[in-house]
Amino acid sequence: MSKFFSGRHAALTPYTPGEQPQDMQYVKLNTNESPFPPSKGVLEAALREAGKLQLYSDPTSAVLGRKMAQHMGVAPEMVLMTNGSDEALYYAFMAFGDEQHPMVFPDITYGFYPVYADLFHIPYEEKPLAEDFSINPAEYIGAGKTVVIANPNAPTGRCLPLCVIEDIVKSNPENLVLIDEAYVDFGGESAVPLTLRYDNLLVVGTFSKSRSMAGARLGYAIGNPALIADMNTVKYSLNPYNVNRVTAAAGVAALEEDDYYRANCQTIMENREWTAQQLESLGFDVIPSKTNFLFARSAAVSGETLYLELKKRGVLVRHFTAERIREYNRITIGTREQMELFLEKTKEILKEANA
Amino acid sequence: MSKFFSGRHAALTPYTPGEQPQDMQYVKLNTNESPFPPSKGVLEAALREAGKLQLYSDPTSAVLGRKMAQHMGVAPEMVLMTNGSDEALYYAFMAFGDEQHPMVFPDITYGFYPVYADLFHIPYEEKPLAEDFSINPAEYIGAGKTVVIANPNAPTGRCLPLCVIEDIVKSNPENLVLIDEAYVDFGGESAVPLTLRYDNLLVVGTFSKSRSMAGARLGYAIGNPALIADMNTVKYSLNPYNVNRVTAAAGVAALEEDDYYRANCQTIMENREWTAQQLESLGFDVIPSKTNFLFARSAAVSGETLYLELKKRGVLVRHFTAERIREYNRITIGTREQMELFLEKTKEILKEANA
Repeated sequence: MSKFFSGRHAALTPYTPGEQPQDMQYVKLNTNESPFPPSKGVLEAALREAGKLQLYSDPTSAVLGRKMAQHMGVAPEMVLMTNGSDEALYYAFMAFGDEQHPMVFPDITYGFYPVYADLFHIPYEEKPLAEDFSINPAEYIGAGKTVVIANPNAPTGRCLPLCVIEDIVKSNPENLVLIDEAYVDFGGESAVPLTLRYDNLLVVGTFSKSRSMAGARLGYAIGNPALIADMNTVKYSLNPYNVNRVTAAAGVAALEEDDYYRANCQTIMENREWTAQQLESLGFDVIPSKTNFLFARSAAVSGETLYLELKKRGVLVRHFTAERIREYNRITIGTREQMELFLEKTKEILKEANA
Repeated sequence: MSKFFSGRHAALTPYTPGEQPQDMQYVKLNTNESPFPPSKGVLEAALREAGKLQLYSDPTSAVLGRKMAQHMGVAPEMVLMTNGSDEALYYAFMAFGDEQHPMVFPDITYGFYPVYADLFHIPYEEKPLAEDFSINPAEYIGAGKTVVIANPNAPTGRCLPLCVIEDIVKSNPENLVLIDEAYVDFGGESAVPLTLRYDNLLVVGTFSKSRSMAGARLGYAIGNPALIADMNTVKYSLNPYNVNRVTAAAGVAALEEDDYYRANCQTIMENREWTAQQLESLGFDVIPSKTNFLFARSAAVSGETLYLELKKRGVLVRHFTAERIREYNRITIGTREQMELFLEKTKEILKEANA
């Protein structure tokens, strides 16, 4: 730390992203990337736009925003496109969080929520998940605080039904409810249609997972036009050209080739159910998942050991050290072949543990 | 404004980017873009990386960072790559600005400095430029505050010599000096070598102008490793995957093809000097520029009229409404053909004004 560093951040613990080894020798099941490449139109868009990189992107992302609005069945002024959904999240925390707008979110959820709250000095409360890692909706009904819920939740994979989300939104008319739908395309129900009826609902999502664009950084926020206007005030005070030229065009192409991505999601959901069954047959506890990952533990081997032994064998999964979840690993669902390899290595490790 | 918007931002006036009409029918001399496309290697990199967009970019931008460090003659731990230089600037404002670290910068400079200071509630003082728009170094010697200077300055184009920058850095050992070198490649002297000797100097730059990558969003900060570590603390609390996969690879290619970009800068400097002479022969006051733009006014036609009349004729330049500079326009230097067209339209407008 330099002597110039602001005391505002003295107590800040940054987020730790999953390992991103650049040598590509691992079967990467640790950061919830898609195993499928982007669609053809994305490649064409990238090539076309690369030749125009000397020109700034459209700060309003108008073409992409309109396409997204159409795709989601909302008005263009209800959409903000962002540099990954992380940017949508921190714009929202900046726009809507402060001492008068404290927040509440689960204790086990996306690790960035407490980091953003700490960074922007927003008071928050973490509600413990139930023993089975489910969110108890009653704790968010009439919360009297800004509610932040990842649905499906990460790293658990569990999903709340839309009617429960609506109850939470409806019961908090004087507080913003932010629903983070990073994983919604793998079996969840999107709350986007509710944004047409509730002015206190903001939905955030990403092209990183279901649309194979983690490396492009594209996310979005959808909500009442007044909420989006507030987020634009933050954006134009921070990073007006937030979506680069290639990514904006790739996003348009990805929306036009929706069938490709839907089919990929279907495959991933099938691989997820198959992998869950296999893990259960090996004695794992597997949390029911509506995402592109599984959260699972084995009584025969600790979470950390499994993670380290898999890594030795060329398979990366995500292990968290927080007390409540340290016996678990989060396993991204890849291709059938990747999951077979993961299971084969897991069996080896279990056999050694039992030897 | 929604009822949920934080009172923290009640007084915030966002930055206004230059017009970015998407129909491309204008000769665009309004946002200091390069008239030259990116180099061949950038196109190849974009195509190659587009096929891997399903994978996150390396959050450390290690390959690009090492290349940049080598290019600049500093150690890799002295470099942070960012999503445009705007991101480098706001990371620095967040990391180093607060009530105990107030800031000082010129009254006429990059419009984002006061916006960032307001957004993060950093007290600041704006020192008036001299009548000729030069910065008076004496006002920053031993300033007792965090100093922020764009060198060359925008939108004036004027440049301070490196020895003056060093005097400012040396005289403020207990305060950070941030030098924004967005335009340094068009005739200025970079302060990067001084970062090896002064722990209070942070230099920020961009690939947007001289490297034809405005649409890719790539910037950097260079300074003492402790400063860069602090900025990384902010980055990992905000936006770990800040540089996308295509942009990171394009940046490497752009550094490898340095000769192409140097030649382009040379051409732009020649076009700038030629354009300045032509404008002077038309009776314009032209501020001496070390950038890829000119800042000029005519006694015969108001700044706003010239801007509007040029726009009618298909030429976009940048007009600012601030009192001190409203009679000027900022004219990006393009190709010789673009500058000829700009001058032809300007002559028409002057002739009408005199009629």
